[in-house]
Amino acid sequence: RKKVQIFQYVFLKWGLALLIGLTTGLIGFFNNIAVENISGFKLLLTNKLMLQGSYFKAFLAFAGLNITFAAAAGSLCAFLAPAAAGSGIPEVKAYLNGVDAPSILAPSTLFVKIFGSVLGVSAGFVVGKEGPMVHTGACIANLLGQGGSRKYGLTWNWLRYFKNDRDRRDLITCGAAAGVAAAFRAPVGGVLFALEEAASWWRSALLWRTFFTTAVVAIVLRSLIQYCWNGKCGLFGQGGLIMYDVSKEVSSYGSYDILAVIVLGLIGGVLGSFYNYLVDKVLRTYSVINEKGPSFRVLLVIIISVLTTCCAFGLPWLVSCTPCPTDTTHECPTIGEIGHYKSFQCPPGSYNDLASLFLTTSDDAIRNLFSNTIIREFQMSSLYIFFVTIYFLGIITYGIAVPAGLFIPVILAGSVYGRIVGRVFHSVSVLDTGLFSLLGAASFLGGTMRMTVSLCVILLELTNNLLLLPLVMIVLLISKSVADCFNRGVYDQIVKLKGLPYLEAHAEPYMKHLVACDAVSGPLVTFSGLEKVETIVHALQSTGHNGFPVIGEPPFSESPELCGLVLRSHLLVLLKAKYFSKERRLSGRDILNKFSPSDFAKPGTGKGLKLEDISLTEEEMDMYIDLHPITNASPYTVLETMSLAKAMILFRQLGLRHMCVVPKSQGRPPIVGILTRHDFMSEHILGLYPHMRQHK
Amino acid sequence: RKKVQIFQYVFLKWGLALLIGLTTGLIGFFNNIAVENISGFKLLLTNKLMLQGSYFKAFLAFAGLNITFAAAAGSLCAFLAPAAAGSGIPEVKAYLNGVDAPSILAPSTLFVKIFGSVLGVSAGFVVGKEGPMVHTGACIANLLGQGGSRKYGLTWNWLRYFKNDRDRRDLITCGAAAGVAAAFRAPVGGVLFALEEAASWWRSALLWRTFFTTAVVAIVLRSLIQYCWNGKCGLFGQGGLIMYDVSKEVSSYGSYDILAVIVLGLIGGVLGSFYNYLVDKVLRTYSVINEKGPSFRVLLVIIISVLTTCCAFGLPWLVSCTPCPTDTTHECPTIGEIGHYKSFQCPPGSYNDLASLFLTTSDDAIRNLFSNTIIREFQMSSLYIFFVTIYFLGIITYGIAVPAGLFIPVILAGSVYGRIVGRVFHSVSVLDTGLFSLLGAASFLGGTMRMTVSLCVILLELTNNLLLLPLVMIVLLISKSVADCFNRGVYDQIVKLKGLPYLEAHAEPYMKHLVACDAVSGPLVTFSGLEKVETIVHALQSTGHNGFPVIGEPPFSESPELCGLVLRSHLLVLLKAKYFSKERRLSGRDILNKFSPSDFAKPGTGKGLKLEDISLTEEEMDMYIDLHPITNASPYTVLETMSLAKAMILFRQLGLRHMCVVPKSQGRPPIVGILTRHDFMSEHILGLYPHMRQHK
Repeated sequence: RKKVQIFQYVFLKWGLALLIGLTTGLIGFFNNIAVENISGFKLLLTNKLMLQGSYFKAFLAFAGLNITFAAAAGSLCAFLAPAAAGSGIPEVKAYLNGVDAPSILAPSTLFVKIFGSVLGVSAGFVVGKEGPMVHTGACIANLLGQGGSRKYGLTWNWLRYFKNDRDRRDLITCGAAAGVAAAFRAPVGGVLFALEEAASWWRSALLWRTFFTTAVVAIVLRSLIQYCWNGKCGLFGQGGLIMYDVSKEVSSYGSYDILAVIVLGLIGGVLGSFYNYLVDKVLRTYSVINEKGPSFRVLLVIIISVLTTCCAFGLPWLVSCTPCPTDTTHECPTIGEIGHYKSFQCPPGSYNDLASLFLTTSDDAIRNLFSNTIIREFQMSSLYIFFVTIYFLGIITYGIAVPAGLFIPVILAGSVYGRIVGRVFHSVSVLDTGLFSLLGAASFLGGTMRMTVSLCVILLELTNNLLLLPLVMIVLLISKSVADCFNRGVYDQIVKLKGLPYLEAHAEPYMKHLVACDAVSGPLVTFSGLEKVETIVHALQSTGHNGFPVIGEPPFSESPELCGLVLRSHLLVLLKAKYFSKERRLSGRDILNKFSPSDFAKPGTGKGLKLEDISLTEEEMDMYIDLHPITNASPYTVLETMSLAKAMILFRQLGLRHMCVVPKSQGRPPIVGILTRHDFMSEHILGLYPHMRQHK
Repeated sequence: RKKVQIFQYVFLKWGLALLIGLTTGLIGFFNNIAVENISGFKLLLTNKLMLQGSYFKAFLAFAGLNITFAAAAGSLCAFLAPAAAGSGIPEVKAYLNGVDAPSILAPSTLFVKIFGSVLGVSAGFVVGKEGPMVHTGACIANLLGQGGSRKYGLTWNWLRYFKNDRDRRDLITCGAAAGVAAAFRAPVGGVLFALEEAASWWRSALLWRTFFTTAVVAIVLRSLIQYCWNGKCGLFGQGGLIMYDVSKEVSSYGSYDILAVIVLGLIGGVLGSFYNYLVDKVLRTYSVINEKGPSFRVLLVIIISVLTTCCAFGLPWLVSCTPCPTDTTHECPTIGEIGHYKSFQCPPGSYNDLASLFLTTSDDAIRNLFSNTIIREFQMSSLYIFFVTIYFLGIITYGIAVPAGLFIPVILAGSVYGRIVGRVFHSVSVLDTGLFSLLGAASFLGGTMRMTVSLCVILLELTNNLLLLPLVMIVLLISKSVADCFNRGVYDQIVKLKGLPYLEAHAEPYMKHLVACDAVSGPLVTFSGLEKVETIVHALQSTGHNGFPVIGEPPFSESPELCGLVLRSHLLVLLKAKYFSKERRLSGRDILNKFSPSDFAKPGTGKGLKLEDISLTEEEMDMYIDLHPITNASPYTVLETMSLAKAMILFRQLGLRHMCVVPKSQGRPPIVGILTRHDFMSEHILGLYPHMRQHK
């Protein structure tokens, strides 16, 4: 490459990281403002009607708005972009592992993800906007990296450098990190999330670029928040960069507290893994309903919305009123604004603590639970009711056709659980129940998501209390270890459930008993260095392979030898250009002068050339094509006797898509077969060798 | 493996992580207490004598103690364990890259590192104890992983599972992380440091284990610190888990502050890279002196100690006295204890601000500079003098024969620099000069060490002010980018200077123009599957190779084919056991029953069998040995025509030590050559192909 091209590449790399950071920061902020204003309006209206005593009217308004928003979100999702349903983190994870599933990162998915998420959260579902933000960040990165969608005619010449797997994967990683950073206002947590959970391959250089992206997000968010301080953003409020600040709470603890925290972690791990188990069961049930068509999906959304609405509005009637505290600086009961003490059905001078959790935004509910200065004590009955409701609503809500993050439901359920445990240990523990609540959230997060360092940093950045760090670490370690005994992390489970061919980092034990050629299956289609057009077209039509080995044969080499690997997409480009010759002769490298390197660049998902687009005459079909110039002459190869476990590690570590298996002894064809991602899936191998199941 | 063995392995893995955490935490704390008490005593004595007006006596006491400590540290280092000199981070980094340099992690190195570091810091050198703590952590991990040193008879049977490269590397990574965690009381920062700077290979599972180790360190530290709160630890003081707490300082900033911060980052980057440049020059000069023998090394240590002492005691005379603040809660001037306001030569009621920086521990000096509540303003002249002195003393101190960390000198110089910049921008900036000081430290760290995320988290954990995060990120990004234009990070530079064969993560551009067989050099020594003992002994004597390809030959296979690779250490075990046969016949797998797997385990550095230990009779030399059972039958191979760049990536990503290059065409010997780490070094390749230099 020339100097100017290197400069263009570097400029583009950092420019795109900057753009991803800016856009994700802006969208994250927009998302936040929209949710706060829409749900704020809804809650304000309900609250006002309740204060006026028009309980039925209040219910109608609340339920009406909830169901309308839910139906809108569900329709968007079901009809426009089914890929936008759910969290999106499993999909991003699979993409970064090398799975090119269609439409995961399409512009329509982005659109639905943003607006569906706003509507879904506003509809009062027990869902978060964090998972969707990760997906949104990834979509933005993909869109920017492709120079916009070709459909909408936004392409730019410089972007040709980014048409390869690695650069695109790097961008998506930055996008995912930016998403977390925007969702939790946690720039370092975002980098670590991308590293620990999202990415399958990682380089030090990428750490650096991701860090830059999330720094941009943090700066954007900080400026916008500062701009909103003087009330220009409607109901957005005056929050700072720290979402749930507990830095003012004293955190001294003794040995009994450690004991309490260990118990908290143990039970949190069990409850977290049970959560995963139930989510899995519910998703399997829903997939039957969802297959029946988009209208059924919308119906499911509406049913869940009705259920959620009834719980949120109905359950607070069950608890008794609490007299307002006298020493608080907060208004009680809250009249106009979205405050912390909800009056609900209670007489003046008292408030309903369950309504203060249900009839508020999730962010405010978490703030109420984490803090010990806002609402000092909740009634035990309120906590129990809230815990059970949120735990099960969270489970049945995930999987319906709305963008739904798992973080917020898990944090909510965990923090109530933590408060309950804190109350149980009240007599022996000096640790504040608000901090117990935070630790409870940590234990649930550890039990469901099974992340460690990233969760720790995200929680730190959410709450700004560094002194709690040792306790948070203990809780996360315990809950993750306990939960790992039962099942896998929730995202891994969903990836598996969706049937995406995800390559694990380690080889399965039974792979040690097999060698590379054992996993080779299916007919091998090879081309000769100078191949007839007809043969190529036929091979492309009759197989779905994306890579074909090219064999050099006698007139052009001494004995048959492996020239390399040619990709389907490159063959199509060559076929389209019709650069054929009548005789079998080498055309040399001048063929490449007819193309620019960008012609062979990897196109966006589903946007490449198709065989049907190329029409060839009978005469052309009889001609020859020289494959040497477009053959990758150094494909990665393994000997057929290489242990399959080692071959799999090689395949995964280097991020390959095709691996050639070559024979060990001489005098045989120079290639035994090709291994692809699907050949390493345990379903495939155990299908071929069912007796290996015992080694599993 | 059987179930019980898997259990033993898992138990050991976590048990060792726990032990590493515990031991490193304890040693880190011991280190801290020892330094605080020894330098505390020294400073107390000097201070008392100064207050009494016996200035010359004070100088004698100060200089005498300094030089004694320095000479002790230097002698320990020069005579006992030269590998303990310097930071140790470059050596750990090289070890984790796969370089098995002798004595890097030996028990004697550990001993000298701990005590030399305490003495060196107590001697008043401008050195930190952080780098040495990383090395200490790594040594502890190595020692525990080997089951103690064999010399001292501490071995344990279970540990046989840990005698391989990967498990040992994982332990050392945990040790390095624990070191950082103990040094800075920054558990998450430790994990990130290990990830970003130390480790060359990283797996998600390792993140999790490292996190556990640093959590243990954090808990140990916290309990010990709590134990010391009631003054049981001498002069250790009442610090908490946060070393330089600035969380109480307000951090609001506007657009002018951003401008000031950008300027700070720019200049910080330049100064940081200049620091690296000077360190490199000084190290090259010192290496000439150091080669002359241990006594010269000790002499150099003493000279630097005298220089440092004169600066610290002499320079405060130059500045004028400052009247004591009236509103402070601190005693002023400090009389007995090590406080913040040093009287020095000043009359009662006033203090010497330069002495308050020089005649105190580095930790206290940094605390004074970061904070705005302790000493509100320093005189500009004091700041300038301190900056220049510390900047150059730091540079000339690194490289002498004492364990010397780079973090503290860089943080010190950076924080003074930050204060100076803060004062320059005083009129337009609302940001506090104490916070400027913190940002200055960040800019210097970014400019010298070139880490990003880990520095950010370490600074966060050191100072506990999350609201500064966006500014710290900006400063780190700018200073690293600026400094990267001039030279490489200081640790990379030192690795290079020491001539360690460090494998970079990316291939050099000229490697794209070469193929794998171009880098193969030297005579290839192969064995046949059934080889004469004499041939093997001769090959082991005449070459230094550690791996030999084994070729299967006709009576036992159809045509010559590559059986695999046999390691020197395994050959030696087989030779020692004298399992030979008179005829050329296959002995089958029963030979392995004579050995336990642990006989072939990788021994600790420099502890393996040697050829000289084995005596063979002439009769035995004529016998045959069957190499098949000990041959690694699936070595990683590349075709000779594979691009060298791709081969290098394969070698590095998979952490290989030997890679077989196999021929492409048939009818040739089944192996072309072997590539090792040294064959990928640019010195080697550019030596073979000098004309490639232009592509560099």
